[in-house]
Formats: sequence, structure tokens, C-alpha cells
Amino acid sequence: MSFLNSIYAGLKPYTPGEQINDPRIIKLNTNESPFEPSEKAKAYAAEEIARSRLYPDPENLALTAAIADYYGLENDRVLATNGSDEVLYFIFAGFFTGEKPLLFPNISYGFYRVYGDFCKVKYREVPLKADFSIDPADYTKGGANVIIANPNAPTGLCLDLDDIEKIVKADQKSLVVIDEAYVDFGGESCVKLVDKYDNLIVVQTFSKSRQLAGARVGFAISQEKNIGDLKKIKYSINPYNVSRVSAALARGAMEDRAYFDKTRGKIIATRESFTAFLRERDFFVLDSSANFVFTRHGKIKGKVLYKCLKERGILVRHFDTDLLTDYVRITIGKKEDMLFLAEVLDDILQEVD
Amino acid sequence: MSFLNSIYAGLKPYTPGEQINDPRIIKLNTNESPFEPSEKAKAYAAEEIARSRLYPDPENLALTAAIADYYGLENDRVLATNGSDEVLYFIFAGFFTGEKPLLFPNISYGFYRVYGDFCKVKYREVPLKADFSIDPADYTKGGANVIIANPNAPTGLCLDLDDIEKIVKADQKSLVVIDEAYVDFGGESCVKLVDKYDNLIVVQTFSKSRQLAGARVGFAISQEKNIGDLKKIKYSINPYNVSRVSAALARGAMEDRAYFDKTRGKIIATRESFTAFLRERDFFVLDSSANFVFTRHGKIKGKVLYKCLKERGILVRHFDTDLLTDYVRITIGKKEDMLFLAEVLDDILQEVD
Repeated sequence: MSFLNSIYAGLKPYTPGEQINDPRIIKLNTNESPFEPSEKAKAYAAEEIARSRLYPDPENLALTAAIADYYGLENDRVLATNGSDEVLYFIFAGFFTGEKPLLFPNISYGFYRVYGDFCKVKYREVPLKADFSIDPADYTKGGANVIIANPNAPTGLCLDLDDIEKIVKADQKSLVVIDEAYVDFGGESCVKLVDKYDNLIVVQTFSKSRQLAGARVGFAISQEKNIGDLKKIKYSINPYNVSRVSAALARGAMEDRAYFDKTRGKIIATRESFTAFLRERDFFVLDSSANFVFTRHGKIKGKVLYKCLKERGILVRHFDTDLLTDYVRITIGKKEDMLFLAEVLDDILQEVD
Repeated sequence: MSFLNSIYAGLKPYTPGEQINDPRIIKLNTNESPFEPSEKAKAYAAEEIARSRLYPDPENLALTAAIADYYGLENDRVLATNGSDEVLYFIFAGFFTGEKPLLFPNISYGFYRVYGDFCKVKYREVPLKADFSIDPADYTKGGANVIIANPNAPTGLCLDLDDIEKIVKADQKSLVVIDEAYVDFGGESCVKLVDKYDNLIVVQTFSKSRQLAGARVGFAISQEKNIGDLKKIKYSINPYNVSRVSAALARGAMEDRAYFDKTRGKIIATRESFTAFLRERDFFVLDSSANFVFTRHGKIKGKVLYKCLKERGILVRHFDTDLLTDYVRITIGKKEDMLFLAEVLDDILQEVD
């Protein structure tokens, strides 16, 4: 027999990308950074290990201050969490469970649907345009909360700040959440709108542009009132949500701006040259503002390409759904990884030709 | 205006103990270990830092196997979480939200009430007996789920395995959760009953007896079906819930049995001698099976004692509620800390005499 509440019987949990810990595999499937954490992050963490006998500061003040300082905000506009997944859950559970419907794109971070189902949120998935872009007009009609990943995943396409502002401004009694997991690779953050609009929460993560997927640290930025409400949820679920070493890693990563700029610069440059290569080989590639590209080729199905690459030791992500099945999503790794991938793709294309 | 769902307007979140990071303070207020993490734990963690760019294994297989190995179980009977608080939340949200009422002692871990309120669980707090002990007969009438901390907090009193088994056995269609955060300091774990009863979930933590409050790692042990159901909740909320370094710390702590035995042995010995000291000084002290003592003195109110100690650089915990206000809860630190505390208590008692 099952002791689980029967309302969860039909739950369809999130399926993470394959996490294969084989160093021989080139792992381009879960949008991790190909670079190690910054020396500063590693040094802070190494020092913190021995203090692990003591609880962390539940307010995560040192980390919160580092994030606030980066964006020129007061500390009470920032909440650090156990990955951005945790704060997304807090938002769904705390803010999206009322009568008001929630809108998000039908192609986006797959977890929105999972949170929506788990929290019994009245959500509606809004179709993207045929070119995979988001039409801001779909989100400005009012009367609904909104969550949008910007840049969107797995498309990599980005709305500009004006479009985001239109959505936030349209109905200031509804909440707009912008998930900026990938914003550091070419988008413009809407953190600057938080001063102007009370109904905006911006979510970011240390997993992608700050090399810390393994540390599990994300954060929300909003006006004080919303951060205070999110803290009510946090202190009702998991007050000590970020470990000491993770907070130390994230603080170091946030403070080391030179390394952050250098590494994201490299990824952007590699993405541009890899995109050019793909297009030369007749791949269709969406214009990515993220650390991945979303691409298909007329001569080879997405699933086949995924399998061919996996056989050759390169892991990419294939989403086996009607809308996305032609495509693969390829994380941008180090330059040498992408050159090797380019060679492998040439081989595969020759075989199917 | 607030965007928080109005059902949470009256939320009374958990209040963590004071987390003061002043090394001059002797911190005996949140039941941390006075000992550093084991050398093995620190070595694993130091090695793991550089791998933090990669997501953790969402199944936490290496850590899960270390826990399973310690208890001689299969891996699929163990779920590791971001502190035991997280798995308690999963249990409340997933298992306790149905029609069946939930029972727990009116004096226990304060978070049960918070989870109950947040998850809208129909709970009933069962009064302890006048001597602060739990009467097993209160929990064997059937028709209700049960959660009990054993040893209980902040009393430190322990039910023996027979009593726990009576509760589990009484109604095998109801779920019994035994929270063994403090069990390693003198209680007998009921993990061995998991083989026999499908309706038992045992929760433990690395925060107390394994020196890792700052790492945020806890776990549940139950039959496969319940662990599978808990995973459905985990993968609907936060798949990558334990950071790489935290998993490494916990794995090391679990493997280093010699250090675990040595440190808990020291704490038990210090608790016994400190308890004897307190009783010599006319303190009333409950028989603790935990790493703290719960005590009062006829000549000094709990709150006054808390304040006097804080002024002298020693932090203990006072719960400002009717039932507990006469008492303080004192974590067992290193022998030298407790000898210093004994001197300070003698001074304080002389002043009030």
C-alpha cells in the first residue's frame, strides 16, 4: 500500500539530464560551465570546510551582501536559496497557488509544469510563435501571473528589456517572475526594474555562468515585501537551506568579477564560432543568448544525432516531445571540446550523406 | 500589497536558535557537535570542491550507499536530503496532507507545528505526561499518523524500542515517523524495524552526532515503496538537493566509524558528569539520551539563567512558552567548556543565594 496522499498519485516529477561522471565523456547536456570555480571561490570553500560542525547563518548574510553588492542593492532585496529550483518552488507554493491563473510558454524550463502540477496551480501554457520566440503581447492582457525564462530554454532566445518591462507594467496587481538562469551569456538583466515595479521577482543561479552547479545556490531579487514573504516560506520549510561551504563558494564566485567576465566572454565567443560552424554545415540554429545552442539538421533526426554523439563520447540533450524532437540542445563547452565536436559532426554528416 | 497567497498570511515560521559567529562565545544553544568534522570527511570535501562546476548526482548514490552500508540495508531504502528538515517537509507535504489526523507530542521539535500549519495538516498535539515523558498508549489507538522525535527534544527523554514497536504495530495502515536526530547519544535506533513494518519511516541527520550541522544533510530510511514515494516529492521540488561538497562530507563522516564512536562517547561521558554536577547543585535534570540536558533550578527562572549565562559569554537555549519557561536546554560541549560552565553556574548560584 502507499501512504502518499492520493492527490500525488499521478505526479510526473522532473527528469534531470543524464549525470554521467565519466571523465572520458564530453558532457554538453546540462548547461554546466566547462570551467572550474574561481580560485577565490575555492579558497573560501576550503577554509569553510572545518567550520561545518556549526549551523550556517540562516540569513546567509555574507552571501546575500555579496549578491546585493554586485547589483548595487540593499540586502533585504535578496534571498539566497538551495539552487534556483528551491526559490522557484517557494514562488509556486507561496505566490501562484491562489485563484489567479499562471501563464508560461509551452516550451520553457520543464520544471514550471512540474511545480504547477505539484502545487495545484491553475496554469496555462502559452504557445511560442512558429519561430520559437515569445510574443510579449501574450503576457500583457492582465489578470494572470507570469513566469518566463529569459533567455528561454531550450531555445536560447531572449526578450529585450523593453519587452520585459511591458509585461511587468501591464498589470501591476499580478506577479511577474523572470527566470534569468542564462542571462549572463548575452541577455540584459531586468534586476534594474525591481526598483520601479513591486510585482517583479527576478531569479538567478550560480549553476551556469558562475561555475557552481554542484554547489546548489540560486537567488531571488525583488522588493523587500516580496523577499520578506519568500522568507516566510523559507522559514516554514527549510531555514538552513544553504550549506556553509556552498555559501562560501557562491560568495567567492560573486566577488571574483574578473573571472566571471573572462569565462562568460570565452563561452560567448565559442558559442558564436560554433554557431557559425553549424550554419556552414546546414544546421538550423536559433540565435542563442545562452550557454547552449538549440539546433536541428534536415538530414538527421534529433534522437539519432543524440545517439550518434553519445556513441562517440559526447553527451548532448534531446527532448523527446513532439515540438522538440527534431532538435538537440548542445551546451557550449571549452573551445577544444567544440572543435572536437565539430570534427565528429562532420564525420556523422558524411555518413548520412 | 502582498502577492503571497492569503492562506499563508497567518504563517508562524520556525525561529532558529541564535546563530552567533563569535568564537569567544561558548555556543551551547543549538545542539551542534563541539568537535570538528572527521579528517576523512574533510579530505573528501577538499577533493570535491574543484568538481563543483558539475551538477551533483541527483540520486546521491555514493552517499546513499555509505548510509545503507552503515545500517546493512539496500540503497533503495535510503533517501538523502538537504538536512533532515527537508525530508520532514517532504513527509508532511506528501504523506500527512490527507484526511487522516496526525499526532505528535505537545512538547517536541517546534518545526512539526510549523510544517503542519504550512501544509494544512490536520494535526493534534498530545500532552506529555507530567514528568515530560511520552505515553506510548496515546499513540496506539489507531486511525492517525504519528510523528515522534526519539529521543524527544527539548526533553532528551527516550522511548525504548519495544514502545516504538507497539506504536508502529498498532495500526499498520497509518504512517509512523520516528525522528532520530539525537538517537546516537543513547537511544536505540528503530531502523531495524523497517524490515518488519511497511508503515515506518525513520529520519536521521548528520547535524548532531556526525559534526555536520553546516553541511545540511539528513536522510530517511524506510521500505522501498515509501522511499520511492518520497523521491516523487523530491523530484517535484528539488532534484539536486544535496551539494557535491555536502555529500562528500557526509559520506566521509558515515565511513569514519572510529571517529563517530569516539566523539559520541565523549559527549555521553561529559553529559553524565555534567548532569551529576547539576544535580549536586540542586538542579532538576531530565535523564537525557541526547547531546543536551534540559534543566531548571528552583532559585532562578529559565529566562534569567539564560541571560546571566549570555552575559558571561555562554549561549544556551530558553523556550519562552508557558510549559518550558522554567527550563533551559544546554548542549553538551567539550569537557573543558562544561567545566567552565560549571564554574560560571556556581558563581550565578552564589549571587542568587
